[in-house]
Amino acid sequence: MYSFTNDYNETAHPKLLESLLTKAKQKNSGYGLDDYCQLASEQIRQVIGSPKSAVHFLPGGTMTNLTFISHVLRPYQAVIAANTGHIAVHETGAIEATGHKVITAQGIDAKLTPELIKPILDEHCDEHMVQPKLVYISNTTEMGTIYRKQELQRLYQFCQQHNLYLYLDGARLAMALTAEDNDLTFQDLAQLTDAFYIGGTKVGAFAGEALIINNLTLNQDFRFTMKQKGAMMAKSWILGLQFLTLMQDDLYLQLGDHSNKMAKALQTIFSEHGFTFNIRPQTNQLFINIPNRLVDNIMQNYSVYAFGQPDSGHTCLRFCTSWATTLDDIERFKSFLKKLSQK
Amino acid sequence: MYSFTNDYNETAHPKLLESLLTKAKQKNSGYGLDDYCQLASEQIRQVIGSPKSAVHFLPGGTMTNLTFISHVLRPYQAVIAANTGHIAVHETGAIEATGHKVITAQGIDAKLTPELIKPILDEHCDEHMVQPKLVYISNTTEMGTIYRKQELQRLYQFCQQHNLYLYLDGARLAMALTAEDNDLTFQDLAQLTDAFYIGGTKVGAFAGEALIINNLTLNQDFRFTMKQKGAMMAKSWILGLQFLTLMQDDLYLQLGDHSNKMAKALQTIFSEHGFTFNIRPQTNQLFINIPNRLVDNIMQNYSVYAFGQPDSGHTCLRFCTSWATTLDDIERFKSFLKKLSQK
Amino acid sequence: MYSFTNDYNETAHPKLLESLLTKAKQKNSGYGLDDYCQLASEQIRQVIGSPKSAVHFLPGGTMTNLTFISHVLRPYQAVIAANTGHIAVHETGAIEATGHKVITAQGIDAKLTPELIKPILDEHCDEHMVQPKLVYISNTTEMGTIYRKQELQRLYQFCQQHNLYLYLDGARLAMALTAEDNDLTFQDLAQLTDAFYIGGTKVGAFAGEALIINNLTLNQDFRFTMKQKGAMMAKSWILGLQFLTLMQDDLYLQLGDHSNKMAKALQTIFSEHGFTFNIRPQTNQLFINIPNRLVDNIMQNYSVYAFGQPDSGHTCLRFCTSWATTLDDIERFKSFLKKLSQK
Amino acid sequence: MYSFTNDYNETAHPKLLESLLTKAKQKNSGYGLDDYCQLASEQIRQVIGSPKSAVHFLPGGTMTNLTFISHVLRPYQAVIAANTGHIAVHETGAIEATGHKVITAQGIDAKLTPELIKPILDEHCDEHMVQPKLVYISNTTEMGTIYRKQELQRLYQFCQQHNLYLYLDGARLAMALTAEDNDLTFQDLAQLTDAFYIGGTKVGAFAGEALIINNLTLNQDFRFTMKQKGAMMAKSWILGLQFLTLMQDDLYLQLGDHSNKMAKALQTIFSEHGFTFNIRPQTNQLFINIPNRLVDNIMQNYSVYAFGQPDSGHTCLRFCTSWATTLDDIERFKSFLKKLSQK
Repeated sequence: MYSFTNDYNETAHPKLLESLLTKAKQKNSGYGLDDYCQLASEQIRQVIGSPKSAVHFLPGGTMTNLTFISHVLRPYQAVIAANTGHIAVHETGAIEATGHKVITAQGIDAKLTPELIKPILDEHCDEHMVQPKLVYISNTTEMGTIYRKQELQRLYQFCQQHNLYLYLDGARLAMALTAEDNDLTFQDLAQLTDAFYIGGTKVGAFAGEALIINNLTLNQDFRFTMKQKGAMMAKSWILGLQFLTLMQDDLYLQLGDHSNKMAKALQTIFSEHGFTFNIRPQTNQLFINIPNRLVDNIMQNYSVYAFGQPDSGHTCLRFCTSWATTLDDIERFKSFLKKLSQK
Repeated sequence: MYSFTNDYNETAHPKLLESLLTKAKQKNSGYGLDDYCQLASEQIRQVIGSPKSAVHFLPGGTMTNLTFISHVLRPYQAVIAANTGHIAVHETGAIEATGHKVITAQGIDAKLTPELIKPILDEHCDEHMVQPKLVYISNTTEMGTIYRKQELQRLYQFCQQHNLYLYLDGARLAMALTAEDNDLTFQDLAQLTDAFYIGGTKVGAFAGEALIINNLTLNQDFRFTMKQKGAMMAKSWILGLQFLTLMQDDLYLQLGDHSNKMAKALQTIFSEHGFTFNIRPQTNQLFINIPNRLVDNIMQNYSVYAFGQPDSGHTCLRFCTSWATTLDDIERFKSFLKKLSQK
Repeated sequence: MYSFTNDYNETAHPKLLESLLTKAKQKNSGYGLDDYCQLASEQIRQVIGSPKSAVHFLPGGTMTNLTFISHVLRPYQAVIAANTGHIAVHETGAIEATGHKVITAQGIDAKLTPELIKPILDEHCDEHMVQPKLVYISNTTEMGTIYRKQELQRLYQFCQQHNLYLYLDGARLAMALTAEDNDLTFQDLAQLTDAFYIGGTKVGAFAGEALIINNLTLNQDFRFTMKQKGAMMAKSWILGLQFLTLMQDDLYLQLGDHSNKMAKALQTIFSEHGFTFNIRPQTNQLFINIPNRLVDNIMQNYSVYAFGQPDSGHTCLRFCTSWATTLDDIERFKSFLKKLSQK
Repeated sequence: MYSFTNDYNETAHPKLLESLLTKAKQKNSGYGLDDYCQLASEQIRQVIGSPKSAVHFLPGGTMTNLTFISHVLRPYQAVIAANTGHIAVHETGAIEATGHKVITAQGIDAKLTPELIKPILDEHCDEHMVQPKLVYISNTTEMGTIYRKQELQRLYQFCQQHNLYLYLDGARLAMALTAEDNDLTFQDLAQLTDAFYIGGTKVGAFAGEALIINNLTLNQDFRFTMKQKGAMMAKSWILGLQFLTLMQDDLYLQLGDHSNKMAKALQTIFSEHGFTFNIRPQTNQLFINIPNRLVDNIMQNYSVYAFGQPDSGHTCLRFCTSWATTLDDIERFKSFLKKLSQK
C-alpha cells in the first residue's frame, strides 16, 4: 500500500546518506562539539545572514520545542499557541510536563495574529493567572498554510512591544519558504523571530532539527538544558553533517519545493474530480473533502490520515507529499482515482 | 468602604475562634496526627455517611487541588475542566506546574456534562495526545451555579464507565448544599465522587479545606505528596479543630445558608431596580449587569469585582455575600442604591 | 505524657491569639494585600534595617523553601546544602519535585563553609552536570548549632565571588539570634544573605513564615510563584498580624531567648547526671546520649525523638524546648530523672 | 590527534551503515510502529529468552533513563544509585528535572549491594522523606567494573523483598557481557531486572538504545511518556534496523568483546611500564595512574579524559577503547609510550 500518510516515511535523501558514508569517518568529538556541527552552524549563519545567531542540533521536533520553551520560561510563564499548534495537541503535553501552560487561541487558517493574542494578554492581568511570555507559531502551520512576511512582521512587532518571545516551529520550513504564496526568506526569520528551527526530519534528514536562537539572552546556558532533557546526542556530528549537506547548494529548499510541486499535482487531480478542500492548499499537505462512498476504497489502497467529517456526506482525508514523492506516484494515484470514480 | 468583594475577608466565625482559644491548649502532635484531626475526620465520616473515606486537612484551595490532582495522575494524564474552572483560570497554572495539562470545555452554566466530555475523550485517541483521566468540577461553580443530583449522578456514571476520576472542588460547598434549588447531600458526594473537598476558607474558617478521598486507591501514600507540596501543616490541629466545630450541629451548612439568604436579599433589591443578571443567581455570588452610569459611584462606595461588559451599556459586577454579611449591611446597600438611582 | 518532642506543639502565644481576636475584625483585602501584611512588612524592614527588602508571608517552612528556591533557579541549576539540611532530608523531595537537584556536603557541626562548597563548584564544571547556584543554610541548624557572624560573612563573600545566591532558612531564627554564642543581628542577615525567612511556626505563631528578599532581582514576579505553589493564603492578614505582634517590642527574640534558657536548664540537669551530648548544645535542641537502660522509661514518660545510637551503650534522644516550656516543666523532669537514676 | 576519549566517536559499524542503505528503502510507518522495530523486538525477545518482555527503541541513554524512571515512579518516590551512577552525576539533573530525588550510596567498585541499600531504606521511614522505589545500576559501571551473576541475583532478590524496582543501565552492556570475569547472560538480565537497556550508541550504532521492560506492569502506557519526553523518533525504524543487525549473529557481543580485547592489550602495555590502575580493569575503560611528568606529553598526543589526582605524583587518565579500535592503534600507542619513557 502506497503511503501519502506523512513526509517522514523514507529514511533519508541519498545525498545525506552518502555524506554520512563518505565524510564522517574519522573520530569525532561528542555532544555537538565536532567539526561538522561547527561547519553546519557556520553555513546556517551565512544562509540566514545572522553571524551572531546561536545554532544547536537536536534529534526531533517535540524535543526541540520542549527543550527551548522550558529553557526560556520562568515557572509561572505560559505559551500562547493556535489551537491547532503541534505543542497544543500532538506532543502529549510535553510543554505542560515541563511546568508551563499552553494557552490557545482559535487560529485563523491555523495562524496567530496580534488581534488574537491581545485579548489573552488583557485577560491575564495579575498573579492569579499565568503570565503569557512566548508566542509559538508554526510555518508551515499544521494545516499546511503559511505566514506572509507582513503577517510575521506584525506578529514580531507586537511581541516586541508586549515583551513576548516569538518562536517559530519550522518542522516544514522548507515547504513554507518555497510555497507559491511565500514571500519570506531565511534572512527574514533571523530578523523576525527570537528563535526558530529548521526542520530536518520532514525534509530528507533521517533525524534532526537545527534550532537557531537569534535573541542571544535566550541562549545562555542552553546546552545545560539540552543535556538535561536528553536532547544532546553523543554523536551529534551525524546531525551536523546532514544539515551541512542540506544547507549547501540550496538542497533544503529544493526538497521543500519538490514536496510542494507534488502536492500541487495531486491538488489538480482532486480539483478535476470536483473535490473541495477543507482549507486552501498552500504547501505539501492537502486536506480534501472526499465523498464518503469513496473513502473506504481509497484508504484500502493508500495510507492517509482521516481528519473527521466536514459534513454528513464527506470525510476529510489528509494527503501529504514529500521530497521522495515521484511524478510516477502521482500518476498512479491519478489512474486509481479515475477508475474509482467511474465505478 | 464596605466590601462585597468576596466571602473570605473576615478572619473567622466566633465559634471557631472560641474553640481555638478554649480547647487547643495542651501539647499536640504535629502534622495532622493529633486528636482534633482524628475527631474531625471521624465527625466528617459520620456526616457524609462513609465510614471508610480518608480525610486530610490542607491549608488552602489551590494547595488542595494541586496536591490531590498531582498525586493521582501519571505523568501523561490530564484533567478535564470547565473553561471557568478555578484550576483552569485562577491558580497561575498550578496544575501545569505539576506537569499536567488542563483540557477545557465551554461549560454550560459553568458546569460540565457527559456530552461536553465525550468529544474530548474521542479526540484524545492515542499516545500523541495526553490521556484525559480526571474530571474537575466545582460546586458551587465559579459562577455561583450548582449541580443537581441527577447531573452529578450522570457525570459520575459517565466517569465510571470511561475510567475517569471525578473530583469536586467544594470551596463553596456550604452554599451549594443549602441553595434553594439544591437536592444534593453530603452523603451523595461520598457516593458520587472519587474525592471532594469541604471548603473552610470561604465558610468561616480562617484557613483550611477538608479533603475527602472516597476512592481509597487514590489515598495510598497521599501524606507523602502532602508533605512534598508543603500542604502538611505542622500545627494541623488548628485546621482539624475548626472542622470539628464547623461540622458539629450543622454549623457549616448554617453558614452557607446564611450566605445564600443575604445574596437573595441583595438579588431582590437589584431586581426591584430592574437590573438583570449575567447568570441566574443560585447561591452567594451575584453577577449583575449594572448600567454604566452607575458603576463608578457603586465602586467608589463598595468594593466589588468587575467582570467585563455584557453589552455597551452595562458592566457586570460581582457581589459576593458571606457568613458574616448582616441584614444591616444589606439594608444600607438598599438605601445607597435607592439614592443613587434617584440622582 | 509531657512532650519535649518539638517546639511547635502549642497553638500560639497568648499575645498572638489576642491580637487575632481583638484586632482583625473588619473586612480585609485578600492574598497579602491587606493592612496588616503592609504594617508587618514595614515593621520587619525597620527591625532588619533594610528599607528596600521585600517581605512575603507564607504558611509554612517547606512551602517557603520550595517556593523561593524554585522561583529563583533556572531549570538546570541546583542547590548546595549540608547533608543535614532540612530540604535535603525532611521535606520529601520538595525541591526535587520542582525540578532541582540538592547537592549535599557533609557539614561541620551541620554548617557549610566555603571550604566545603569549593570542591562542589570545582567538580561541576560543564553542562553534563547541574549548575550549583544557591547555597541553602539553616540558622539554627537542624542540629541546634548556630552561625557566627564571621562564618556568615565568609560564606556570603564566597557566594558573591562565585555568583551564588545565599539563602538562610530561619525556622528557628529566634533561638539562633539569642543563643549565648551568637553575635549576629537581624541587620546582619539583611546584609549577608540574598534572602532569609523569619520562622513563626516554631516561635509562637500558629502558622506562618516571613520571607525577606534582600536581593531584589530575585523578587521579580515572586507573587506569581507564590500563587502557583498554593503559598498565597486568601486570609494572609492572619499571618501578617502575627508577625506584626511578634516583631513589636522584641517579642520574637524574647520567645527565642526563653526557649534557649529552658534548654540550658535541661542541659544542666543532664550534665549533672554525667550524660554527654552528641553535639555541643547551643540553642533549644539537645541531643543527649542516654544510657540504653534508661531509654524506655524516659520515652514512656516523655515524648521525644530518638536519633540513633552513638555507641552500643547509648541512644541519642532529642529534647526540644519552646517558648511555652515552663520552669515547672523542667523541675518535674529533674525529679523524674533523679528518681529514674536512683532505681 | 588519536582519541582514546570514549567509545562513541565513530559514526557506526559498517554493517549497520550498510543495512541502513540497502534495507530501509521503502516507506515506513512512523514512531516505532514499523516492521524493523517489530522484527528487532522479536529478535531481542528471542536472544534474551523472554517472549513477553516489551521492547522500545529510544535515541539516547539520558533520554532512556529519564523516560523510564519518570514513567514508573509516583511523585514522591526516589531512585537509589551509586555515587558514581551516570544519572547521579553526568546527566545534568535529568531525573530531578522530572521531579525525583536520586539518593546515592558510596558504591563498592562503583556497584551497589543489598548492604549499601538497606540503611537507606531504614532511614527513609516516613512521609517526611522521599520513598525509595527504584534501584539504578549500570553494567558495566561508569568505572568499567561489572556485576557478577551472584551479585545481581542478590540485588534483585533484595529488591523483590523490599518492593523496589531494579533497573539496569546497559550503555556498555556488550562490554559487560563479554568481560573475562563475566558470568551473566542476556537471559539472566531478563530474569533478574524489572527493566534494562541494551546500549547501542557505545557499541557501534550511530544512535539508539533498546529498552526492555520485563515487569509488564511498568510498561503500561509507556509510549505516552516516550512521546511526551521527545523520545519517540518519527523515523524509529532507523533505530530498529540497527538493533536488528546488532542482535543478529552475535554482532553486538562481538563488538563488546573486541572493545575489551583492545583494552586488555593497552592494559598490558601500561603494566609493562609499571603503571598502576585506579580501579582494577575489567572492560574497555582503563583508569591509569600516570606519573605527572608524562601527563602533558600524553595528552598532547592522545585525547583522553583526566580523572583527578590519586596522589601528589600521579594523575589518573581514562583510556577508552571501542569496537573501532585497531591493533595498529594499540601498537602505535605502545611505540609512543616506549619512546616517551625513554626520554
